[in-house]
Amino acid sequence: MTQYTFDNHSCRQEELNKAAVLTPEIKTWSVPAKSVVNLVPHPASWQHVGVSEAYPADLLKDQILSEGERIVLDFGETLVGKVRLKLESINSSSAPVRLKLLAAELPYEADADPETFCGGLGRGWLQEEMITIYDMPSEIELPNRYSLRYLVINVIACSVSCAVKLVKVEVIAQSTAGEKLVPPLPGWDQELTQIDAACSRTLRNCMQNILEDGPKRDRRLWLGDLRLQALVNHVTFRRYDQVERSIRLLSACRNGYGMIPGAVIMKPEPHASSFILDYSLIFSRLLLEHCRFSGNSNIGDELFEIAEHQLSFFREGLDRNGNFHNNNHWIFIDHCCELDRTSSVICTAIWAVDGLAELAELLNYPPQKAKELRAEADKWRSMLRRSSFDPAKGVLYSGYFRQLSWAGQIWGILAGVLSTEEGRVVLRDPDKLQGGIKPVSPYLMHYLLEAYRLCGMEDELLKTIRCYWGGMVCRGADTFWEVYQEENDFYTPYGSDPRNNSACHAWSGTPGYFLRTGEKHVAPDMCGTNRC
Amino acid sequence: MTQYTFDNHSCRQEELNKAAVLTPEIKTWSVPAKSVVNLVPHPASWQHVGVSEAYPADLLKDQILSEGERIVLDFGETLVGKVRLKLESINSSSAPVRLKLLAAELPYEADADPETFCGGLGRGWLQEEMITIYDMPSEIELPNRYSLRYLVINVIACSVSCAVKLVKVEVIAQSTAGEKLVPPLPGWDQELTQIDAACSRTLRNCMQNILEDGPKRDRRLWLGDLRLQALVNHVTFRRYDQVERSIRLLSACRNGYGMIPGAVIMKPEPHASSFILDYSLIFSRLLLEHCRFSGNSNIGDELFEIAEHQLSFFREGLDRNGNFHNNNHWIFIDHCCELDRTSSVICTAIWAVDGLAELAELLNYPPQKAKELRAEADKWRSMLRRSSFDPAKGVLYSGYFRQLSWAGQIWGILAGVLSTEEGRVVLRDPDKLQGGIKPVSPYLMHYLLEAYRLCGMEDELLKTIRCYWGGMVCRGADTFWEVYQEENDFYTPYGSDPRNNSACHAWSGTPGYFLRTGEKHVAPDMCGTNRC
Repeated sequence: MTQYTFDNHSCRQEELNKAAVLTPEIKTWSVPAKSVVNLVPHPASWQHVGVSEAYPADLLKDQILSEGERIVLDFGETLVGKVRLKLESINSSSAPVRLKLLAAELPYEADADPETFCGGLGRGWLQEEMITIYDMPSEIELPNRYSLRYLVINVIACSVSCAVKLVKVEVIAQSTAGEKLVPPLPGWDQELTQIDAACSRTLRNCMQNILEDGPKRDRRLWLGDLRLQALVNHVTFRRYDQVERSIRLLSACRNGYGMIPGAVIMKPEPHASSFILDYSLIFSRLLLEHCRFSGNSNIGDELFEIAEHQLSFFREGLDRNGNFHNNNHWIFIDHCCELDRTSSVICTAIWAVDGLAELAELLNYPPQKAKELRAEADKWRSMLRRSSFDPAKGVLYSGYFRQLSWAGQIWGILAGVLSTEEGRVVLRDPDKLQGGIKPVSPYLMHYLLEAYRLCGMEDELLKTIRCYWGGMVCRGADTFWEVYQEENDFYTPYGSDPRNNSACHAWSGTPGYFLRTGEKHVAPDMCGTNRC
Repeated sequence: MTQYTFDNHSCRQEELNKAAVLTPEIKTWSVPAKSVVNLVPHPASWQHVGVSEAYPADLLKDQILSEGERIVLDFGETLVGKVRLKLESINSSSAPVRLKLLAAELPYEADADPETFCGGLGRGWLQEEMITIYDMPSEIELPNRYSLRYLVINVIACSVSCAVKLVKVEVIAQSTAGEKLVPPLPGWDQELTQIDAACSRTLRNCMQNILEDGPKRDRRLWLGDLRLQALVNHVTFRRYDQVERSIRLLSACRNGYGMIPGAVIMKPEPHASSFILDYSLIFSRLLLEHCRFSGNSNIGDELFEIAEHQLSFFREGLDRNGNFHNNNHWIFIDHCCELDRTSSVICTAIWAVDGLAELAELLNYPPQKAKELRAEADKWRSMLRRSSFDPAKGVLYSGYFRQLSWAGQIWGILAGVLSTEEGRVVLRDPDKLQGGIKPVSPYLMHYLLEAYRLCGMEDELLKTIRCYWGGMVCRGADTFWEVYQEENDFYTPYGSDPRNNSACHAWSGTPGYFLRTGEKHVAPDMCGTNRC
């Protein structure tokens, strides 16, 4: 059991100890390299790099590698874990062998030279290593944990008389959930089966000491990602202990004003890293759902007031007319600079208050509590509807310049500012949102699925899953990507190098939740068969 | 205690076990970085790279390092050990920090880019590392053991918000001898004191699990180096246990013909790596001297026959006229391709037989044994003198083409083919050896010192120590270099890149033996004061 000490970020020691008690055991399993592959320029492939098998990895032990050679290994699926190499040389009495290695989730990331990196978040996230092997034969474990499907090995030093053989290369994969994914539901076609498996694998790979957002990049516990992971967890691995641990870590790391952080960094001691207003508001929904899913509402009793307190950071931005003035808060909603977030964050707050009211009822608070909360939500709803809903067009605008966006409608529907009937109309009619700002991240795409479900639009929900998430699958994804724009292979929100994008990201793996909870499990493929 | 198993190189298990029992304890001590230095182009400096202090390393903890920065640390002396770094960042919530590091013995090696390496033995011997630090603050130990005075640190990844501070950098130095060098003898001037200290430091740094030839490159137990180390050890650290361990390892690894190897590699199991005729012959002298120095002749009794057996590999090359025909043996003598080794190897054999005769007497063999051995030595001596000594010129030629070399005279003197009087004449008169092949390596330079001593030429001995080894000292050496040619900064026997040369090498550290055993401890500096 890990003991956390109180640090200077106002973490609460007692609450941290409750999280430490829940530190999960991490299971490991061995995955040998499956094949040696060629990476080739191929404009039709995702990010223009194609992968073709050169030979099965079983034959690797007979290949002699010399200085200057590069081989690329494919492990057959995206994994998180340590990498072990077993090497032999054909002559032991020679100079040390030096290898440069690159672990990569996607072919482009594997193929591009790390020296050319120009991304915004840092080359440090590229999974590069350099190792020196002085004695042969040798078994080596690379020093870090990686998220990878591909491993590039460059022999940068190896004297003439000492060519090297890679006798074995394996990933010691790791997850608290173990290796096995959840079996598909009966009746699913191949596409839905693949999508669901990629969701489970995404979650599995993020299930480590904490529920990470991306095991390649960030590796943190983010509140926004966590709520979505908790949904998928409920229909797959059901590790409610890990969700509880996450909730406790976030709650314990609230700041001096009592605000729950957007993210927790675990080392050297758990501490807050980012404060994001919409994430803090969502905490009430996370807590409500966890109490429902796990059947254990003790933690709801413990943390209800903290969840309710998050509303105060929203309330302080409201004027008497119900206009919201952002008081320097970071509001996320989506990866989109130009998005006006005003209506969306008000709706998030309404949705949070509705969730709190439900939680109050679940926890058997005096009925007055839920009633007061609902009254406040109703007030905000009508103020926003009055200021920003256009009854003629049936859309919800946002902000002073009355910006039109998908985000606004999605959150308007979830908050009940738009009725489900109005929601159906606006989401079904492409003309209504003509020129409106589209969703950018899978995070907002998830909330679109929630809006579809709330409006009973199961066909559209399935179509979106097939087109958007299915689009990633047919472009090679077996875990879902942090960032995906079908028409832009190289899109990144982080500067200009897509290699900082995570290809296994918590917030992208939610279709499995909808597929496993929807009443209509199978829908025809409405995206066309040749879309990628 | 390490147990060695019998391997496929005909190692003898029982003998290996006796070596394993003698596995030494390695002592460690911490050496913090002394200063941050600038490496600057400077034609007057050795290898054209000058070193100047930028600021004391104590101030490092206040320096913020950003992506793209390089710093060079000087530890104040050449050390062997592990490197530990303590890092902090000015903002914990950011991308990992990636450092490229290069540990180096000499300024040029530190300054030159590893990517430009073009040496013969392999870039693998350059002491390069790349590490990634995910969590801050962090204490890191680099993965390998290095021989270094300088450490170059390049910050190759560090996001803008996460500049890094090197709070502490230290070498955990290691040697079986511990940190302390042997104090100088009274009456020495500064130059002799420095030379002697560099000899002790060279030996200290080579004293590891085995007595290594070079702790940067090779890291093996070489018989030729060992004999010279054993001489210095006798007047400094007196670790006869380590010499005995080395003798046993070499003896245990003899091949199927009973030939003792030139070198032993320890991993995965001790095994022979090179068979060198003159090294095998020298084994008898090594054994004799060890019995004398340690005062324990048990090992002499055990290994006498094995030492004697080495002569058979020489004898099989002799025809009835005393001409030696090399039967595909590697004969070292010196790092010099064009050197004819015929006379030198015959002399080495004579010297070895003389040594065996002395050992037979020390071990109280029947007097007949020494007599027979001496008779054989006398026979070879007179045959060689008849075939290759020119009484008119007073020099010993070598081979069919009657090549003239320093090596021939040196070994002729040691073998008594030239009398000490003849030796004095030839070594004192520069005209005699005009056009003769000069010594290349410090290894042969050592045998020149032995020849001087045998001839009673203490002034010339001291002059050579001051000029040759003193020349390295005034060019910055605090351990002695494997390779040194005053007029050629970039000379290397290994291809065209001097970075494969070792700057701390066993066979170069013997002046200390002569200084500490000579009767005349102080001689004037005859090299001139401005020679470097």
